[in-house]
Amino acid sequence: MPIVSSKGKAMPESPIRKLVPFAEKAEKEGKHIFRLNIGQPDIKTPIEALNAVRNHTVEVLSYSHSAGFRSFREKLAAYYSKHQIAITADNVLITTGGSEALIFTMGSITDPGDEIIVPEPFYANYYSFSTQSSVTVVPVISSLENGFNLPDIEEFEKLITPKTKAILICNPGNPTGYLYSKEEIKKLADLAIKYDLFLISDEVYREFVYDDSKHYSILQDNRLAQHAIVVDSVSKRYSMCGARIGCLISKNKDVIDTAMKFAQARLSPPTFAQIASEAALDAPASYYTETIAKYKARRDTLVEGLQNIPGVKVSIPDGAFYCIAELPVEDAEHFSKWLLDKFHIDNQTVMLAPAAGFYSSRDKGKNQVRIAYVLNRRDLSQATKILQLALEKYQNDEYRIQEVPQKV
Amino acid sequence: MPIVSSKGKAMPESPIRKLVPFAEKAEKEGKHIFRLNIGQPDIKTPIEALNAVRNHTVEVLSYSHSAGFRSFREKLAAYYSKHQIAITADNVLITTGGSEALIFTMGSITDPGDEIIVPEPFYANYYSFSTQSSVTVVPVISSLENGFNLPDIEEFEKLITPKTKAILICNPGNPTGYLYSKEEIKKLADLAIKYDLFLISDEVYREFVYDDSKHYSILQDNRLAQHAIVVDSVSKRYSMCGARIGCLISKNKDVIDTAMKFAQARLSPPTFAQIASEAALDAPASYYTETIAKYKARRDTLVEGLQNIPGVKVSIPDGAFYCIAELPVEDAEHFSKWLLDKFHIDNQTVMLAPAAGFYSSRDKGKNQVRIAYVLNRRDLSQATKILQLALEKYQNDEYRIQEVPQKV
Repeated sequence: MPIVSSKGKAMPESPIRKLVPFAEKAEKEGKHIFRLNIGQPDIKTPIEALNAVRNHTVEVLSYSHSAGFRSFREKLAAYYSKHQIAITADNVLITTGGSEALIFTMGSITDPGDEIIVPEPFYANYYSFSTQSSVTVVPVISSLENGFNLPDIEEFEKLITPKTKAILICNPGNPTGYLYSKEEIKKLADLAIKYDLFLISDEVYREFVYDDSKHYSILQDNRLAQHAIVVDSVSKRYSMCGARIGCLISKNKDVIDTAMKFAQARLSPPTFAQIASEAALDAPASYYTETIAKYKARRDTLVEGLQNIPGVKVSIPDGAFYCIAELPVEDAEHFSKWLLDKFHIDNQTVMLAPAAGFYSSRDKGKNQVRIAYVLNRRDLSQATKILQLALEKYQNDEYRIQEVPQKV
Repeated sequence: MPIVSSKGKAMPESPIRKLVPFAEKAEKEGKHIFRLNIGQPDIKTPIEALNAVRNHTVEVLSYSHSAGFRSFREKLAAYYSKHQIAITADNVLITTGGSEALIFTMGSITDPGDEIIVPEPFYANYYSFSTQSSVTVVPVISSLENGFNLPDIEEFEKLITPKTKAILICNPGNPTGYLYSKEEIKKLADLAIKYDLFLISDEVYREFVYDDSKHYSILQDNRLAQHAIVVDSVSKRYSMCGARIGCLISKNKDVIDTAMKFAQARLSPPTFAQIASEAALDAPASYYTETIAKYKARRDTLVEGLQNIPGVKVSIPDGAFYCIAELPVEDAEHFSKWLLDKFHIDNQTVMLAPAAGFYSSRDKGKNQVRIAYVLNRRDLSQATKILQLALEKYQNDEYRIQEVPQKV
């Protein structure tokens, strides 16, 4: 029997999705699960987007341009200019989700064995996409104690080797909710320029910043014209995760021309999703302000709820809709499985994403979870109460010794 | 300035799309182009698919399961059973186009430096996906003179090394239109079993076989349960190239589990496109029979037209909707550019896909083009007439010495 590749074996299971079989079992048993594990918002998709698809006039569902609809790219350029990001339609490649933008970026700038430096904890799939491209992720540790702010630039500098091709950040950050300041971006820019590295910024949560914070894009630093590659997506901005539309933005023509060859190979991004995404740009300003207000309120509810639980540590996120919480447990993955498999209060329980999968360093984040605040405040409040009661019970040996089966 | 990767540089430009700038220029000059270069059918998409999207009830466009809708995979299993292919929904992973199914396949079974044997000429993007995965394509030459039938199995055997992981075929074939017989599939199966190789079959043109020929899938050979990986797509079957929905099928659980990790990393296939693709399976039998009848008639028109042109050689395709034609020119790419840039008859010209891009061997196929018969018969007839006149003029030195600009 022929066997799968070493790369295939090395591909990590999604830490966000690996508990799904336990959740399916719990639901079959009649439990209601508060899903804090996945960044799937409950916010409604803009009606402009949904109606554009309802009113489509397609008769032959043809390939689109490999770079995506020209009209969509032009409207996107106008959208970015509102965010003080001066780009043209030719700087934008429409991709099948932010995921594909990252895959094209890795392919365009790295060869097998190359290295990319990433502040840790990071979005778990950065590790998957790196593995897919046979690239090594070199982590720089940021810590909950320091609020996940940018590690000292010397920490980056000492990791740079001839194989280092890029630094990759997520701003605002998944899973930390951390928002980089303009000064921090400047420091990274200095480093990228000094060592001739690409600086990749995943900015899919651009709008979701709170408390009068301002998002500063790497594309706003003119010195980075040849170094900056931005990954973006409509998934979170318009609650359109299922569209699978994102984009890759760079003013570096070689990067765009190279990524375009990867884009041509996969032919085109999905047409209906482009119709929806282009129309979503017509959503009124109120759509953004209302969504952001909701997330801010949810964040406050969640953080307050978590801070009330003895032994839980949390850093207040400035952006995105996640936080990392440290729990008074040894193994957050075991606890997360236990929550689904062994625990309920009135047939209710909570699903968390164990944070170890957001670290490439061994043994980091083992007592941490990522929590997505994508539920309404009442549900979030109820979920934190359940979490508190669960932690009390779990800390009782009687419960901990009941082993969770490793396979379902 | 940081530079792109060697892999990025090695990625080929699409031979199907590299003439697009010349075509755009020709259209700006008011020329009508008969597009024989790309497999973009003019056939209407099933109304069932289009209406399903029109009538969608989505309010929050959420991620779907990473493997695709369960209901869709179950309906697909039923569809395959009608084609004597006995599989279950668990053997199927929904992908973003057949393209992604190939990318997942390469990632799941190869490591950088591994080799895949492919009968040549082959679908140009096999080379792109291999490059993306740092895999070497090892070609086995099939020739127009032999009607592109399966090369002697000894030709495959002598190319097998410890790095060989798979044999990849396209059946029926793009760009040749060649349909492998059951006996040929059996020979490949023997080889795959003998050397413990995966046998990958791209069967996206399954329905499009003519003259009472029968398609025989590798999944019909029970001996291949652990070796067979089938790549499929709705793009051609339902004229839904813009949906970007395909699938990867294997009874090898390790392959599916590994591909699933790649699928989880990119989160999910596009939702609206899945809605459309699932509904397309409700198209009546007449949709298939009418479409197939159309393609057969078009093939006959095209082949007859080509056979009437002095110096043109063509092999009659048994399936798909392409043929390879040898032209009485030295450099078919130069001629194809010239057609767009320098030539017209009553403001009409023809766009071809130079066939060299469908060969990985240097200097192969230089005087060949791939022609897609995706236009109606009148247009095909007109296009072959234009081609004949163009060849007459081109063979006149006066025209040939006018250099086509290399860049537009």
